[in-house]
Amino acid sequence: MRKRIVSVIGGHNCTEEVEQLAHNLGKKLAKVVSILACGGLSGVMKAVAKGFKTGGGLTIGITPGYNKNEANSFIDVVIPTGLGLARNVLVVKSADVVVALPGEAGTLSEIAYCLQFGIPVISLKSWDIPGVIKVDTVEEAIREVKAKLKPR
Amino acid sequence: MRKRIVSVIGGHNCTEEVEQLAHNLGKKLAKVVSILACGGLSGVMKAVAKGFKTGGGLTIGITPGYNKNEANSFIDVVIPTGLGLARNVLVVKSADVVVALPGEAGTLSEIAYCLQFGIPVISLKSWDIPGVIKVDTVEEAIREVKAKLKPR
Amino acid sequence: MRKRIVSVIGGHNCTEEVEQLAHNLGKKLAKVVSILACGGLSGVMKAVAKGFKTGGGLTIGITPGYNKNEANSFIDVVIPTGLGLARNVLVVKSADVVVALPGEAGTLSEIAYCLQFGIPVISLKSWDIPGVIKVDTVEEAIREVKAKLKPR
Amino acid sequence: MRKRIVSVIGGHNCTEEVEQLAHNLGKKLAKVVSILACGGLSGVMKAVAKGFKTGGGLTIGITPGYNKNEANSFIDVVIPTGLGLARNVLVVKSADVVVALPGEAGTLSEIAYCLQFGIPVISLKSWDIPGVIKVDTVEEAIREVKAKLKPR
Repeated sequence: MRKRIVSVIGGHNCTEEVEQLAHNLGKKLAKVVSILACGGLSGVMKAVAKGFKTGGGLTIGITPGYNKNEANSFIDVVIPTGLGLARNVLVVKSADVVVALPGEAGTLSEIAYCLQFGIPVISLKSWDIPGVIKVDTVEEAIREVKAKLKPR
Repeated sequence: MRKRIVSVIGGHNCTEEVEQLAHNLGKKLAKVVSILACGGLSGVMKAVAKGFKTGGGLTIGITPGYNKNEANSFIDVVIPTGLGLARNVLVVKSADVVVALPGEAGTLSEIAYCLQFGIPVISLKSWDIPGVIKVDTVEEAIREVKAKLKPR
Repeated sequence: MRKRIVSVIGGHNCTEEVEQLAHNLGKKLAKVVSILACGGLSGVMKAVAKGFKTGGGLTIGITPGYNKNEANSFIDVVIPTGLGLARNVLVVKSADVVVALPGEAGTLSEIAYCLQFGIPVISLKSWDIPGVIKVDTVEEAIREVKAKLKPR
Repeated sequence: MRKRIVSVIGGHNCTEEVEQLAHNLGKKLAKVVSILACGGLSGVMKAVAKGFKTGGGLTIGITPGYNKNEANSFIDVVIPTGLGLARNVLVVKSADVVVALPGEAGTLSEIAYCLQFGIPVISLKSWDIPGVIKVDTVEEAIREVKAKLKPR
């Protein structure tokens, strides 16, 4: 049966507080979905992958360059696209549901793609754009993820 | 000598008012830059290409599909990427300066890419995101385009 | 620890004989590598995924369109790229080693990318291009895959 | 009216003889088609662009990276894709007809894409793959280009 995928997006630089948030989110997401996709690099991408693996899930890193070593050490499966920022499309399109953590323009482009594709995007202290589902806590985010994963 | 390129982004559906704005913008841009790039489809993309051609410029349409006929009839040169929405990256990265007209999530993704690349993006009644140059009239937009085109 | 990936490429239409070959190859590859990547569609891609799953492995389909349902039913994880034929690059670049089965121009483009990237490509009754490792049986292919997977 | 585009493909390293061939081809192509597309880099791409400009045409370079300066100095319009080798698809798909000069695996991937798309590809001392139109001289290549450009 097809695996469900959650993507988590957010900055490659982040504060310790956001890092902790991402780690915590990842750990709890692993109880809800079997696969995490992300951009595979540092910051939010690394912290969430670490948490998700701690929680027992499988992590996929869809990276911008061609070198698999570009991926952080918590990525199980690297898809080295060589597409640069165009890989953002793939990060969100692979997902059944997306959670956005704080990030800058790259994160914004990914949120925009979610809206364009009609993929539910949950903003946890991230950009507030019409169409996103705003939440304030990891618990709320998890609740929304569960709600958006259509039962099969 | 390398040609200067301006990209204009905006919705594939637009009101008659925005269509008029895009046409007017295109016509005036053609006096300032020799080449216009855009997404090549309908709405803002078609109106601005029509105006730019009226003004005497050359238009490039960087389209999402593989069929050249997808491009509107005011596009001189079609680059049919087949990349879907990932082609948004190319539309803005080709440009020395970008003007954003009203549009939805697709336009937002393109503005986000401009910010990430450091390409100046002038928002003419479009999204108001930190980092864009907000203007209210075609004249102001043209003035900003001129200012951003570094003399060589 | 990073998962090893084998990619199998080949035609989306194939004879029953090649289908059997692909299925058999997939089944045996699953004993050697934990993850199979492929283009996710029909023909060789479907038969090899079916075999690989029978053998107990995890299958990733890197598909050209945006619709996850485009993937065959033996794909566990769909990466719906929307990149059209440009997704061929990702299919081979994800792999540590590639096996080519009979196919037409699409398969040839993927073999060419392997050669350009320096990814070992084993041709099992497929294109005979300078640089590929020609083999005639599934057993030989498996032996070459094992040899090319660098021990860690 | 939509501009016709010819793409010329070939190695980024080439012998002086091939360089001369590419330059000569470019110069003569400019009398037949108004726009040349190519990969924008060195070797065949540079020589053909130089010839095409000498002949009075407009040159487009569809480059793999994000830096416009990566393009050779005979490129009028740079489309800096950032797509790496996936940009090969765009180089050939932009064209009404393609001429292949000697090159290695990159050139082979482009020929393969032509065959897959059904774009006529004329091989001038390049790869001999079923489906290409083999020619031995620039004159023959020009004659084939003319034949393939459908009258409108």
